[in-house]
Amino acid sequence: MFSTEQEHQLVELDRAEAMSLLASVPFGRVVFTRNALPAIRPVNHLVGDGEIVVVRTRVDSGLSATVRARQNTVVAFEADDIDPIRRVGWSVVVTGFARVLTDPNRIERYERLLRPWVDRVMDTVIIIEPTLVSGVRLVAP
Amino acid sequence: MFSTEQEHQLVELDRAEAMSLLASVPFGRVVFTRNALPAIRPVNHLVGDGEIVVVRTRVDSGLSATVRARQNTVVAFEADDIDPIRRVGWSVVVTGFARVLTDPNRIERYERLLRPWVDRVMDTVIIIEPTLVSGVRLVAP
Repeated sequence: MFSTEQEHQLVELDRAEAMSLLASVPFGRVVFTRNALPAIRPVNHLVGDGEIVVVRTRVDSGLSATVRARQNTVVAFEADDIDPIRRVGWSVVVTGFARVLTDPNRIERYERLLRPWVDRVMDTVIIIEPTLVSGVRLVAP
Repeated sequence: MFSTEQEHQLVELDRAEAMSLLASVPFGRVVFTRNALPAIRPVNHLVGDGEIVVVRTRVDSGLSATVRARQNTVVAFEADDIDPIRRVGWSVVVTGFARVLTDPNRIERYERLLRPWVDRVMDTVIIIEPTLVSGVRLVAP
């Protein structure tokens, strides 16, 4: 049903529904501050135990540098699925501390479960612990 | 052609191609810093004269507050179109100064061209002047 001339509503999602939607898609966008500027990078992800968001990157990436630069780096991770024709869908944003994973067992496990999509060496596993979880659903009138 | 087990390549886009792709889609994500935290919000946009990115928001939104808080606020705007099955697509990020538009003629014009998707009063037009434009295409092997 097309309804492009009508205005749709934004409905807030609760945390459980938002995390479930985030886990249902294979990629999102990590948002961070790099050299005092806002930065964003699409990346495939998974949601692991304890609702952590897991991504892989390179040791020399901007994301790695940002997370390694200091403890308690806060990043956001966004995923969405929006149909621009029907104008329905959802968007979820988690915000929380990011850190480079160092436990060899967990690194091995996540490297097995989360395969990079691109032909670059992805030698760094970063986890994001969601402190704030927000989400909206765009619904037809 | 499905090729989910093969690793794809990232190819850099030039500025003209990146801006053309950004203009070809109806929505993206504005990325900014809010209370020292990274923030991201999906929003529909258009690319206007001089390659500016135009979005609409509410006067009381976090984005408005951020842009109004000081001159020369830098934000990023990202759009992408990625097929997670075939693992092909593109992502474009523009980074530049954002400001609230005040010229009544331009406000009227952009309000006519860019209709909000949601049933909220969108009383503020924000423009982003791209300083940095980067983009990548994810291509099959």
